[in-house]
Amino acid sequence: MKLNIALLAGDGIGPEVINEAVKVSDAIAKKFGHEITWKPALTGAAAIDAVGEPYPDATHEVCKNADAVLFGAIGHPKYDNDPSAPVRPEQGLLKMRKALGLFANVRPTFTFPSLLDKSPLKRERIEGTDLVFLRELTGGIYFGEKGRKDNGDTAYDNCVYTRAEVQRLAKKGFELAMTRSKKLCCVDKANVLETSRLWRETVQAMEKDYPEVEVSYEFVDAVAMRLVQWPNSYDVLITENLFGDILTDEASVISGSMGLMPSASMGAEVSLFEPIHGSYPQATGLNIANPMATILSAAMMFENFGLMEEGKAIRDAVNKALEAGVVTEDLANGGKAYGTKEVGDWLAANV
Amino acid sequence: MKLNIALLAGDGIGPEVINEAVKVSDAIAKKFGHEITWKPALTGAAAIDAVGEPYPDATHEVCKNADAVLFGAIGHPKYDNDPSAPVRPEQGLLKMRKALGLFANVRPTFTFPSLLDKSPLKRERIEGTDLVFLRELTGGIYFGEKGRKDNGDTAYDNCVYTRAEVQRLAKKGFELAMTRSKKLCCVDKANVLETSRLWRETVQAMEKDYPEVEVSYEFVDAVAMRLVQWPNSYDVLITENLFGDILTDEASVISGSMGLMPSASMGAEVSLFEPIHGSYPQATGLNIANPMATILSAAMMFENFGLMEEGKAIRDAVNKALEAGVVTEDLANGGKAYGTKEVGDWLAANV
Ligand SMILES: CC(C)[C@H](C(=O)O)[C@@H](O)C(=O)O
Ligand SMILES: CC(C)[C@H](C(=O)O)[C@@H](O)C(=O)O
Repeated sequence: MKLNIALLAGDGIGPEVINEAVKVSDAIAKKFGHEITWKPALTGAAAIDAVGEPYPDATHEVCKNADAVLFGAIGHPKYDNDPSAPVRPEQGLLKMRKALGLFANVRPTFTFPSLLDKSPLKRERIEGTDLVFLRELTGGIYFGEKGRKDNGDTAYDNCVYTRAEVQRLAKKGFELAMTRSKKLCCVDKANVLETSRLWRETVQAMEKDYPEVEVSYEFVDAVAMRLVQWPNSYDVLITENLFGDILTDEASVISGSMGLMPSASMGAEVSLFEPIHGSYPQATGLNIANPMATILSAAMMFENFGLMEEGKAIRDAVNKALEAGVVTEDLANGGKAYGTKEVGDWLAANV
Repeated sequence: MKLNIALLAGDGIGPEVINEAVKVSDAIAKKFGHEITWKPALTGAAAIDAVGEPYPDATHEVCKNADAVLFGAIGHPKYDNDPSAPVRPEQGLLKMRKALGLFANVRPTFTFPSLLDKSPLKRERIEGTDLVFLRELTGGIYFGEKGRKDNGDTAYDNCVYTRAEVQRLAKKGFELAMTRSKKLCCVDKANVLETSRLWRETVQAMEKDYPEVEVSYEFVDAVAMRLVQWPNSYDVLITENLFGDILTDEASVISGSMGLMPSASMGAEVSLFEPIHGSYPQATGLNIANPMATILSAAMMFENFGLMEEGKAIRDAVNKALEAGVVTEDLANGGKAYGTKEVGDWLAANV
């Protein structure tokens, strides 16, 4: 296969972890006979510094014409103190999601047997957890009309959803559930919000098309609780943008393996793959960042092209590295810590 | 002191736990020379069954004219399956909050040394946790304009906040922080929402009036994570209605003592006190429900009248009961389980 991949390294440790994902992907391409052309482009604080905005048109052109986007991380402390500043890295992120139509954010939370003890939860609570959130990413209160009235003394944010938006996301959820344990949980606040009632009635109407999928409906506050109590009682969860923002982050820390969690944001035309961790500015350039989440994001990318063996080769190599202790300092547990590059080298040699 | 207390027992186990809180409060009144007049009124499913709506005008009259409201729990399975049904117990709850102006929901999460092992979190993560959320309760997306367009295919919910609403809640937060460790965390999503930017700028402007309070600002998704990772790093947190709904429930399960957590909802004229647990319909009438959260809510009520010793007497008695193993089956750990009434009797005798 010939693949054109847009490469958005971003800020902080972004470039370092992206480098290792490229290294491992190239090793996969070599092994399986694919040809990857990487198209680097600017984003985040790096793009603001260079051209004055976080998601420049030139970057959008590169992404739009690529087969997929591999993304590092964005965010820089110099933009952190004033959330109302007109140009911030996050604005670029939202613009990118909307412009590329990345409507479904796929956020798995799973455990690695060798890392169970890193979880803040007791072992018996977290063992066996393997869930996936599908978060709607281009609608809701993030993109509704917002502003001020009364000389700035009143602020408003409008949350809007259309039936078509819900259907599009829910369809992905049902399909994913069919490939897993056929359990789907729709997370909403239908006892209070009209948008949630639209979500619930739309999903209910789709149930008949997937008779094998067992669908449950839970309120967002109840899910926030049960994720901590019995995370392994969930499988596939679908939800709207803001609830997804909160719950996927909550879910990401329960496994104790946040530094290893990949994600995908799927669009109709192009999809984007990125680690869920941030840009850890304080680790920049130190060769200590854990590249595994980005490398596992590359695995999701291959799988999304239907290249399942390629994805599996990466996952297997990561598992082997964890077992062999070829890990960065965040996972070294007092033992030997490898550098970012060395972990990448080892994985490239072992896929 | 002469106290008129509206008594809203509600549904499920509500009446049973309320009975024990009355018993213990009466014992306190006797011991400290107060006179409590209880004014029972209907609410929840019980009120729907009796008069067709969950928060009848007659109940509102009783609450409005009382010095405080003691509340049990509402919710009944027969109203659970259709969130869009026109008459639901929750509608009564929202109507009551608005009509009584209960703008500040106070939700403490703390631990009991003897119950630490009930937490889903590891002991070292949860030990020492003692935090309080102040959740705004009468504004935001709960009460903004909501509805449908496009023949029902588009739904919207409007989130609105005024500077005065934020100030009123934040003032309570600063004042509470002054009585504790002088740390205040404002939880928002100011990188995305205009209402959050109003929250943040309003709180920032108030900082100068409380020079001793150290204020931090965190995004709601980050708080959802850190609550699981390092709950004891928080003290007082203030937030808007919907974020508060999600985060206070998340916080309530981390301690492992959810069945013991009280809460208060403060208004300008009258305040309401209630356990955070639900109406557990399946336990109704079995004399097994844990009354301690309701009894501790009564303690908050006394303290809110400035009767600190009275509150402390209740808290001390609860601690003694926990140590002596005078507990209901949820806390019995295979040991002897006392009934709801027997726990109430013991506490009334020991305050
Ligand atoms: C940075 C922020 C705008 C973003 C979001 O809220 O979507 C982030 O929290 C995320 O989840 O990707
Ligand atoms: C029942 C529901 C409307 C309510 C809310 O969302 O406020 C409940 O979850 C709560 O937190 O008291």
